[in-house]
Amino acid sequence: MSTPRVNRVWKLVSRPNGAVRESDFRFEEQPVPRDGEILVKNLYLSFDPAMRGWIDEFPSYAPPVAIGAVMRAFTVGVVVESKHPQFQRGEHVLGTGGWQDYSVPRGGDLMPVTKILDGVPPTAALGVLGLNGLTAYFGLLEIGQPRAGGTVVVSGAAGSVACQIAKIRGCRVVGVAGGAEKCRWLTDVAGIDAAIDYKVGDLESRLRESCPKGIDVFFDNVGGPVLEAALANLAERGRVVLCGGISTYDSLGQQPGPRNYLILIVKRARMEGFLVLDYLSRADEALGALADWMREGRLRTKEDVQQGFENIPRTFLRLFRGENLGKQLLKLDEA
Amino acid sequence: MSTPRVNRVWKLVSRPNGAVRESDFRFEEQPVPRDGEILVKNLYLSFDPAMRGWIDEFPSYAPPVAIGAVMRAFTVGVVVESKHPQFQRGEHVLGTGGWQDYSVPRGGDLMPVTKILDGVPPTAALGVLGLNGLTAYFGLLEIGQPRAGGTVVVSGAAGSVACQIAKIRGCRVVGVAGGAEKCRWLTDVAGIDAAIDYKVGDLESRLRESCPKGIDVFFDNVGGPVLEAALANLAERGRVVLCGGISTYDSLGQQPGPRNYLILIVKRARMEGFLVLDYLSRADEALGALADWMREGRLRTKEDVQQGFENIPRTFLRLFRGENLGKQLLKLDEA
Repeated sequence: MSTPRVNRVWKLVSRPNGAVRESDFRFEEQPVPRDGEILVKNLYLSFDPAMRGWIDEFPSYAPPVAIGAVMRAFTVGVVVESKHPQFQRGEHVLGTGGWQDYSVPRGGDLMPVTKILDGVPPTAALGVLGLNGLTAYFGLLEIGQPRAGGTVVVSGAAGSVACQIAKIRGCRVVGVAGGAEKCRWLTDVAGIDAAIDYKVGDLESRLRESCPKGIDVFFDNVGGPVLEAALANLAERGRVVLCGGISTYDSLGQQPGPRNYLILIVKRARMEGFLVLDYLSRADEALGALADWMREGRLRTKEDVQQGFENIPRTFLRLFRGENLGKQLLKLDEA
Repeated sequence: MSTPRVNRVWKLVSRPNGAVRESDFRFEEQPVPRDGEILVKNLYLSFDPAMRGWIDEFPSYAPPVAIGAVMRAFTVGVVVESKHPQFQRGEHVLGTGGWQDYSVPRGGDLMPVTKILDGVPPTAALGVLGLNGLTAYFGLLEIGQPRAGGTVVVSGAAGSVACQIAKIRGCRVVGVAGGAEKCRWLTDVAGIDAAIDYKVGDLESRLRESCPKGIDVFFDNVGGPVLEAALANLAERGRVVLCGGISTYDSLGQQPGPRNYLILIVKRARMEGFLVLDYLSRADEALGALADWMREGRLRTKEDVQQGFENIPRTFLRLFRGENLGKQLLKLDEA
């Protein structure tokens, strides 16, 4: 492979004031970076709700993406140049390559570059055998602490394997998702006990019907009215695992929080947040279990793979409109 | 003492639609109950924020007070008649006697009748050596798990000994209270590190100044904007102990919850509710510690004792207006 000369990038050029717009990003061509020990050609981009937080101006667990910087994103790529003894040309790696063709992994990356194990498909490394799977595994098991026979509810259920992990652990599992197609996939393919389309009817009363003993663990990716409906159905000593709040991300923190949060007192219950990045040192344990479950056919996954460098910002917006059917990815064409 | 014939009572006659009004209660005279093994003459009534929840129509940890029933309240009284071998005439008891002169303890009472130990002043049994003290003790220590050197913030601080228990445990302690008088008492008498009047200035930035390392434990009695300001200053792995939300009780669950609750994710933090009634089996342990600390002069308390049967509903309203300076009680005159 001849050394490439042009790096296509999408830069952040304005911070969204509410909903993200395509115009918050700008396409540019740059020279390929030459200053690192490794050069990676990105193959797939991952689109994750957490990225919405990275472009607000408030420092969080990660510094905000600077205005004018290449948009941050988790990526799978192939090593095209290496002066580093641990990485060889042609190896697939997981990292924080961003919205560009070529990236140079650095020490300060949000997720350090790591090799993808043999036999793991590159897209799985961005999904169930990557941060998505780890998020569901550690969030559900460590923070939620489900017990066999208990009732687990997951929101944004079609985009998470938390449902299926809870099912493997012997729980009654109800998924909340947007649209009949996602709900059908959850019951018919993922094999959970019930799925509720939050867009149809009164979620609170439908959760009550599906969870007559109350909700022991609520794994929340959504926030807003979905969180309120789940709180209203919490069982005594229930645990709310805060994984995300995608329904609220565009409102700049001005959307009301859960009005009924004092139910946590009456039910002696808990609401707790976590970051999967804190668990990376235990990734092997989780990835081993997840890979076993996949081989056994007990974990079913769904990927929504868009194409084309020009479609990157548009694909990001699919997340917030609930348009993605499964894990949102984009396959990069050749540079 | 001759057997009394008239029992003055205040009954609940309407459920408040928002703020409680005096007209939600009606004065009546009834015959003294004769159907129990013990008859208690109430001496002091306790007024607690939790009572606001008891008069809403929604079942909670306790059934709602029925329309037409005597208002439920914790009380201290003296046994005036007894056929029960464990209670003698003249003994002081703690119980759920309600807004009336005479009460008959029953099996279903929210707090079962118990004798007050020798040497404990009757008003202390409704305060620091009763449910108030137990609430602060178990809520702070079991749910909040403060560590020496950590930062603890308490809202509604003048009405709780949580501040002083945290101080005894070696924490840096900041109280949030309404008005200069309460704040002065907190720093000058209760001896905590700082007190902030939430009515003056920007609470979030003032908490930031007082808690430069962030808040490790927030013990919340108030909710609303005070909770939001504390969440904004939470330290990593912080714990929010939900004890109450008095600022929200009049809004029928329609007041927004904390808009910034997703900070719990960024900070890997937790918000957890509890009910002191769950800890009554361990009351001896706590009451022993609290009594020791009082004797040693390390726990200072403040009581606001109103008088007069006719003033009972009005005294209840003082809680929601923040008018009480310390634990709100009412001393009953002779029937």
